[in-house]
Formats: sequence, structure tokens, C-alpha cells
Amino acid sequence: MTELTTATGGGMLSREEMDAARERLPIVYVDVVPVRVDTQGAVVAVGLLLRAGEDGQIKRALVSGRVLYHERVRAALLRHMEKDLGPLALPRIPPAPQPFTVAEYFPTPGVTPFHDPRQHAVSLAFVVPVAGDCAPQNDALDLTWLTPDQALDPGVQAEMERGHGVLLRQALAHLGHPV
Amino acid sequence: MTELTTATGGGMLSREEMDAARERLPIVYVDVVPVRVDTQGAVVAVGLLLRAGEDGQIKRALVSGRVLYHERVRAALLRHMEKDLGPLALPRIPPAPQPFTVAEYFPTPGVTPFHDPRQHAVSLAFVVPVAGDCAPQNDALDLTWLTPDQALDPGVQAEMERGHGVLLRQALAHLGHPV
Amino acid sequence: MTELTTATGGGMLSREEMDAARERLPIVYVDVVPVRVDTQGAVVAVGLLLRAGEDGQIKRALVSGRVLYHERVRAALLRHMEKDLGPLALPRIPPAPQPFTVAEYFPTPGVTPFHDPRQHAVSLAFVVPVAGDCAPQNDALDLTWLTPDQALDPGVQAEMERGHGVLLRQALAHLGHPV
Amino acid sequence: MTELTTATGGGMLSREEMDAARERLPIVYVDVVPVRVDTQGAVVAVGLLLRAGEDGQIKRALVSGRVLYHERVRAALLRHMEKDLGPLALPRIPPAPQPFTVAEYFPTPGVTPFHDPRQHAVSLAFVVPVAGDCAPQNDALDLTWLTPDQALDPGVQAEMERGHGVLLRQALAHLGHPV
Repeated sequence: MTELTTATGGGMLSREEMDAARERLPIVYVDVVPVRVDTQGAVVAVGLLLRAGEDGQIKRALVSGRVLYHERVRAALLRHMEKDLGPLALPRIPPAPQPFTVAEYFPTPGVTPFHDPRQHAVSLAFVVPVAGDCAPQNDALDLTWLTPDQALDPGVQAEMERGHGVLLRQALAHLGHPV
Repeated sequence: MTELTTATGGGMLSREEMDAARERLPIVYVDVVPVRVDTQGAVVAVGLLLRAGEDGQIKRALVSGRVLYHERVRAALLRHMEKDLGPLALPRIPPAPQPFTVAEYFPTPGVTPFHDPRQHAVSLAFVVPVAGDCAPQNDALDLTWLTPDQALDPGVQAEMERGHGVLLRQALAHLGHPV
Repeated sequence: MTELTTATGGGMLSREEMDAARERLPIVYVDVVPVRVDTQGAVVAVGLLLRAGEDGQIKRALVSGRVLYHERVRAALLRHMEKDLGPLALPRIPPAPQPFTVAEYFPTPGVTPFHDPRQHAVSLAFVVPVAGDCAPQNDALDLTWLTPDQALDPGVQAEMERGHGVLLRQALAHLGHPV
Repeated sequence: MTELTTATGGGMLSREEMDAARERLPIVYVDVVPVRVDTQGAVVAVGLLLRAGEDGQIKRALVSGRVLYHERVRAALLRHMEKDLGPLALPRIPPAPQPFTVAEYFPTPGVTPFHDPRQHAVSLAFVVPVAGDCAPQNDALDLTWLTPDQALDPGVQAEMERGHGVLLRQALAHLGHPV
């Protein structure tokens, strides 16, 4: 596992220690908007994960996860892409470390458009083209590819939690799409 | 203090708890390159802090510091600017959350150009114009304004630790300056 | 006039020559979203110009204009800000040349979200905070400051032509605002 | 030819008309730094073209060229990549229109780090990973892949004209490389 190989001695946290840290420190995250592009790089589809929400309802989500101790941000991007989309997704991690935005998830709703009841997360957000075959993994039930216009549909947006709908719209705006 | 007003109940860490967290989790940081600009926004000077290094030698440094639990990134930028440059510096915090780069400081030297023996820090780096009067505060001995060419001098670069010289050059490149 | 001082000998185009060039070459433009910010850099208001449209109706617009021969982009930004907002607007031209997006205006509607019947323009788009007093100049009838939420109102968006409504939304997304 | 299919009626310029326009208007350009990346997106090599300079000496250059009337910027990026690197280069044009910088080439040396005796060009600069086989085309004699450190060698830099060495260093800084 990437977690083990990139973490140094003593770097792994127990569940209790992680819970304690989450009440005291902002946690470093990455958010990824997976996209399919044409030969000119224009986005033709956006990939959204289907997950079972805490209330049992089906929710759509972006690829998202924590950066581990002693892990490079680009290693975390690849690890979370493989974790959610499978080992054959062939993600094209961007060559530059500059994210298109930084999403600040607060445990208190309303401070920013982003909310995470578990923690204060500072998330570096990237658009990542994928070229291979995606097979939802982990706790993702499915992956659906939507055109940018379909992804902007209010019904789709309503199925996204924690502000992921806002982040998706910010990503599409960054890509030059009308939002 | 901003720390107290932005931290929620239980959000403050003891020295021991912070030390423990630093061995287990990447810490969210901000780095700031303070600049003076002309009316067209072109950079005319870069501000470097003078600090006493751990070996007693005088070192130059950028404005840098931790983002606290429940603190907005832009609040952290303002707090660290005021902490190091004084309350009359009038920093012009950028309106967009997109940093010009992300600097990854590793406790192990050589993984990236950035190194921090105390911790693994993921730092959002911004160029911030300042319009007011700067008075070095806190543990900064002095603040010197250098032209971009002076700041690129190898002698100046050699006085910067932890990769701050590299980050300064990346900032000047981002500003369109030849590096 | 800035035009005259920055243009070199023979650099000025007659109306006929400019019309001819506009049918053959993409023209370099800048677009500016003027904003008011608070001490943390957060946007509190967006400035929109009121102009008389070609059909006699009142239209809202961003600050926009051509880059002249032998003129720096940052000089063009300052010139167009002063032209539309007056000499006391105190615009804070961004220190870096990286625009937040590039808007491609095509003479044919529908190729991109941006349309200009007169020409193919490639426009570098920037968010520019203004700190001073704005007095609409030139052919601008008025300047109104709207909160980000007011600026996103469909009624306001409908009063913007050439895709300026789309560009405004892309700017607000770049600023971290939900759009 | 892409030029003919993307240009509308009357859109093609004679050599004389283009020369005249170049004395009066800034010309829209794109500059590309071709790179090879690993699975995490980190740059492992930079591609530099070898061309015969005007003085007969061999010079190194980035991929560079004009945006045509009624041509999308991303179409121009693909066209120039194919023109210089061949049809099998498989360039991964970035999905977002935001360039990493804008290089302003002036006919007068010294105004900016960029110089083009033929014209005033405003160039959108992108880093473009290439995944396929490159075969130098057109007036390029060869294409060499250098590691980032090799590309930063003063000897290599000295073989680059028009400020391409500066632009390459700015690109590497944007990619997080020490410059």
C-alpha cells in the first residue's frame, strides 16, 4: 500500500489519534475532478462517483482524500485516483503543483461553501484527465460520465454533498465552460 | 489575538500535542513573498526578513506560518503579515484562493527543494503587495527591500534556508521576471 | 494620451486599416472585472459599467479594450481602467502576467461563449481590485457596484452582452464564490 | 491544412498584408514547452527543437507560432505541436485555457525579456506533455529531450534566442523545479 511505503516510522495514526488531530488542526486534502478530453484537450465528460450517503441516500461525489505524512501531493492524487477509479484509469496527473483553487471545508456549515462535519480540511483542487478504463473501487458504488451540461443540471448538483457541487462548477468555469 | 478568536473550543494545542501531530500529519502552511509594486503592478522590490538562525547566523526568510484550526487561509495570510511586518503594512491579500505554487516541505532533505526539520508542511504560496509602512515584529530582526535583481544575487540566495531561495525564484518567475 | 506615447512611428492605424485587420487577424484584448475587497482580500462588490447598446437599450459591461502596438499588457490594463473608471480609481493591477482565463470572442456566435460581431478577439482576463473613487468616463453612462450575489442575479446577467455575463461568473468562481 | 479549414473566407493574408499588420498590431501567439512526464505527472524531460538561426548557427527553440483568424487557441496549440513534432507526438493539450504565463515579445530589445525583431507578439505559454513519438518536421532539424537540470545548463540556455531560455526557466519554476 502506498500509505505504508510513503509513511515513515511512527507515521501511521490510530483511529483515536486521527480523531483527536481532526479536532485541533486543519487536515491537508486533495480534490479531483476527473474528466475525459478530446484531442484538443477540450472536456467532453466529467466523472462523478456514486456513494451511499450517511443517511442511506445515494450521493454523487468527486474523488477526494487526505494527503499522508511524508507523501507528495502528486502521489496522493495518483493514490486516490487509483483507489476510487481502479488501477487501469490512467490518470494524467497535472505536471504543475498549482491547483485551480483551494477549497476550505469547515466543520461549521456556512463559513465557506464547503462543509465537512468531521474536520477542517484545506483541499488542493485539480482537474485530472483520465485516459483508461475506470472501475469504481473502494466504497464507490458506480462512476458515471456526464457531459458538462448534464453535470450542471440542478438535479445532479442537488445530489452532491459537502459543497462538491460548487467545486464542480468552479472547475467547469476554470475550464472555460459557461456555468 | 487572532489565534484565540478563530479557534473553537478545544482548538488550541499544547506544545506537546503539536509536536506529536507534527510527527504524524502534514501541516497546512502559507508562504508569502512581500513585494512593492508600481502603479502598473510591476514589482519594484521584494521584502526579505532577517532572522537569527538556529546556528546563530543571520538568515533571510519569507513570511511564513501555520494555518490554525478553523482559520480561513486569507485570515492566516493577514495574521502572519501583521505578525512579521507590523500592523501598518497594509498588505493587499490577493482576492483569489489560487496560490502561485504549493511548496512541500519535508523533514527529510532532498525529497523536494523545500526542507523543514520540524515537520512535513504543505504550504500555499502567494505574492502579496504591501502598500504601508513595515516594521519588523516578532522574532524578525529587520526587513530589507531588494530589487528583483538584487534578490536573485547568489549571496542573498545563500542566506536563505529551507528552500526559501528557491521559492523566491519561483515567485519572481511567476511575476514574469527572468530568473 | 497613452496610445500616442506607447505607439512607435507608424504604429497608429486608420479606421479603414483597423477594419481590414479585424477581418484577417485575431486582436489582442484585455477584460477586467473591477472589484472592491476587504482587508483580507475577500471580494465585497463587483463593478459593472452601464452603456447604451447598439439597439439603444442599456447594457451592463466589464472594462474591456484592445492592447496597442508596442504596449505592455499591464499598461493596457491601467489605460482601460482609467479610461472607463476615471483617473482616481486607483486600480491595483495584479503583479503577475498570468490571467485567470482567456476569453476567445468570435465573430460567429456559438463557437465559444464569447461573441463580438466586429472581430475575433483573444482577451486576457483579470480581476482588478480598485481602492479609489470611480467616475464613469468615456462612453460609460454609469458604474454600479453589486455584491457577488446581486451580480449573479439572472436579471443582471441578462443585461450583459458578448458573453460578459459568462466571464463575470467565471471570475467569481475563480474568486472562490459559489456560482 | 488546418490553416485553410479554420480560416474563413478572405481570412488568409498575403505576405505583404501580414508584414503590414505586424508593424501596426500585436499578434496573438502560443508558446509551448513540450515535456515528458512520469505516472505521477512529474516532468522527466523537456523537448527542445534545433533550428538553423538567421545567422546560420544552430539554435534551440520552443514550439511557437501564430493563432490564426477564427482559430481556437487549443486548435493552434495542437496545430503547432503537430507541425513541429509530427503527427504521432500525441500532445496532451491542457484542458483549461489559463496559460502559466503570457510572454510579450517586443520588436525593440530590452522592453521585456522577450524579443522578436519581426513583430510585437503577445504569446500564451503552456506546458504540454507529449506521450507519443516525436519526429521533427517543418524547419526543425532535430528534437532533443533534456532533463530539467540539463535544460537549465548555461550552455543550453545560451543557444536559445528571443528569450526562449527565460520562458523555459519560468516554465520549470511553474512546474516546481528549482531554477
